[in-house]
Amino acid sequence: MKNPLSQSNLSRLCIHTATTKPLPIEEAVKIYSEHGVRAMTVWRDALQGKNVNEVKKLIEQYNIKVVSLCRGGFFPSVSVVKRKQAIDDNIQAIDEAASIGAPMIVLVCGAEPRQSLETSRSQIKAGLEAILPVAEQKKIKLAIEPLHPMYADDRSAINTLKQANDMAEYFDSPWIGVAIDVYHVWWDPDLEDEIKRCGAHGNLFAFHICDWKVPTGHILFDRGLMGEGCIDIPQIRGWVEQTGFDGFHEVEIFSEKYWQSDQVEFIKNIIEAYNKFT
Amino acid sequence: MKNPLSQSNLSRLCIHTATTKPLPIEEAVKIYSEHGVRAMTVWRDALQGKNVNEVKKLIEQYNIKVVSLCRGGFFPSVSVVKRKQAIDDNIQAIDEAASIGAPMIVLVCGAEPRQSLETSRSQIKAGLEAILPVAEQKKIKLAIEPLHPMYADDRSAINTLKQANDMAEYFDSPWIGVAIDVYHVWWDPDLEDEIKRCGAHGNLFAFHICDWKVPTGHILFDRGLMGEGCIDIPQIRGWVEQTGFDGFHEVEIFSEKYWQSDQVEFIKNIIEAYNKFT
Repeated sequence: MKNPLSQSNLSRLCIHTATTKPLPIEEAVKIYSEHGVRAMTVWRDALQGKNVNEVKKLIEQYNIKVVSLCRGGFFPSVSVVKRKQAIDDNIQAIDEAASIGAPMIVLVCGAEPRQSLETSRSQIKAGLEAILPVAEQKKIKLAIEPLHPMYADDRSAINTLKQANDMAEYFDSPWIGVAIDVYHVWWDPDLEDEIKRCGAHGNLFAFHICDWKVPTGHILFDRGLMGEGCIDIPQIRGWVEQTGFDGFHEVEIFSEKYWQSDQVEFIKNIIEAYNKFT
Repeated sequence: MKNPLSQSNLSRLCIHTATTKPLPIEEAVKIYSEHGVRAMTVWRDALQGKNVNEVKKLIEQYNIKVVSLCRGGFFPSVSVVKRKQAIDDNIQAIDEAASIGAPMIVLVCGAEPRQSLETSRSQIKAGLEAILPVAEQKKIKLAIEPLHPMYADDRSAINTLKQANDMAEYFDSPWIGVAIDVYHVWWDPDLEDEIKRCGAHGNLFAFHICDWKVPTGHILFDRGLMGEGCIDIPQIRGWVEQTGFDGFHEVEIFSEKYWQSDQVEFIKNIIEAYNKFT
C-alpha cells in the first residue's frame, strides 16, 4: 500500500447507507455525524416507508452532505414491458434524488442472462437515452458504474471502465458520467489509462472504496474494509485524484459479517481503516 | 444459443477427471469409455498414490486419449524460496505429463495478493522462462489459461485472453500457447478478436466448456452443465473453430452439487448437455 492518507481528515469521507444497512437512516445520520462523517450516499431502500422531506430535514440539521442516491439502472430485459418499467423506475429515482437533495444517481446498468451482453448494452443505451432529458431537467447527474465481470450475468453488461467510458462519451453530456468502485475495477490492466481518460473527458463523477478479501466467501456480500484485502487503494486513489477529482471517497461495503456486527463499532473501524488504508 | 452440435458425435468430447472428482481415475476411465467418451484430461490429484504406468496402460487399454495434464502454474510469491519450489513443481508436472502420455499441461499461472498484479505477471514470465527448456526437451506443450478476474486475488494475474495472448506471443515458442475456458472469458468484450488473434498466432491449444449459473452460489465450486447458465457456448465454439482449431471440447465442471450426485448419471447428463448446448 503506497501513499495512504497521512492524517485523520474526514472531510472527504462518505459512507453509503447500505454499508450500515441495519441502521435506520435517521440513526445512521446521527451516528455518522457523531463520529465526524460529513457525507453519505443514500440507498433507496433506506427511504422506503419514510417521509422523505423529514429525512432530508434531519440530514440538513446534522449538516451531512448527500453525495448520491443509489441506485438506478437495471435497464435490460427480454420483456419490453419490463424495460418500460425500468425506465419509469429510473425516472422515479431521479425524482427521489431531487427530493432527498442528492445531485447524482449511481446506475447499476443491468444485464439479462437470456440475451447477449451486446443486446443488453444496446438496451442500456436506450434506457439512458430515455431518462437523460429528465435528468437534465431535474439537474441530477447519472453515474454509470462498471461492475466486476463476475456480475455480467444479471447485474451489469458494463464490466470494465473502458466500457463505461465508451458509453459516457457516446452521450457526451455533462449529466452522464462514471462511478469508479475499486472493488469492480482493481484487476483491470487498463485501469490507469482508463481513469485518465475518464477524468480527461470530465466523466469521473464518483469514487467508491472497500477491499477484496482473500479468500472471498460470497459473490455479493463479503466485501472487506479498506486494508483487509488485496486492492492497492492508495494507488487507485492517486490515479483518480491526478485527474483533478476532488469528490468524496465513498465507503460501500456489502458484508453479511459486518452487517451482523455492532454498527457503531463498525463505523469506528471504517474511519480507522479509511485513515490507514486509503 | 446458436448453432448447437446437431447430432450425437462424441469424437471431440473430453472430460476432466476433476469434473467427476469422486471417481478414482481407474473407474473414470471405464465409465467414460462405456459411455463413448474417447478423451480425458487428467488432474494431478487423480494420480496421487497411484502407479502412473499402470494408469497409463489402463487408459490405453480403453483406447482413451489423454488431452492434457492439469495443472501447473502458480508461479508468483513474495517468497523467493516458494517461487523456486513452484518452478520445481512445474518441472515435475512436465515429467508427470510425459509419464501419463499427456502432450500438454494447463497452467493456472498464479497470483500473490501481497504484491501487485504486474509483479505477479513478471514472476509468471520468469517461471515460464525457467520451465520452457524442460518442456521443449520433453515435448510437452504449456497452455496458459486466462482466469476470470474474480480469481485475480490469488489464482491468476492473467485475467483476459488478451493478457494470455500477450504472454504467449512474448515467448513465440511452439511449446507455449493458450487454453480458453468459456467460464473465464465469456464476459469479455474483446473475446472474438482475441480468439482470432490466438488462432492466427498458432497459440490456441485447448478449449474448455461448462456454464455460468445464474445465480452463482460459490465463487469456485458452482459451475453449471452446458445449457444451464448464460454463456453462449456455441457462439464461442464457433469463433474457436473458425481459427482452424480442431482439438477437443473439454468439459471442466467444478461443482459441489454434481460431485455429490451419482457420477454415472452425471456423465450421461454431460453427454446430453454436450450434444444439446455445445
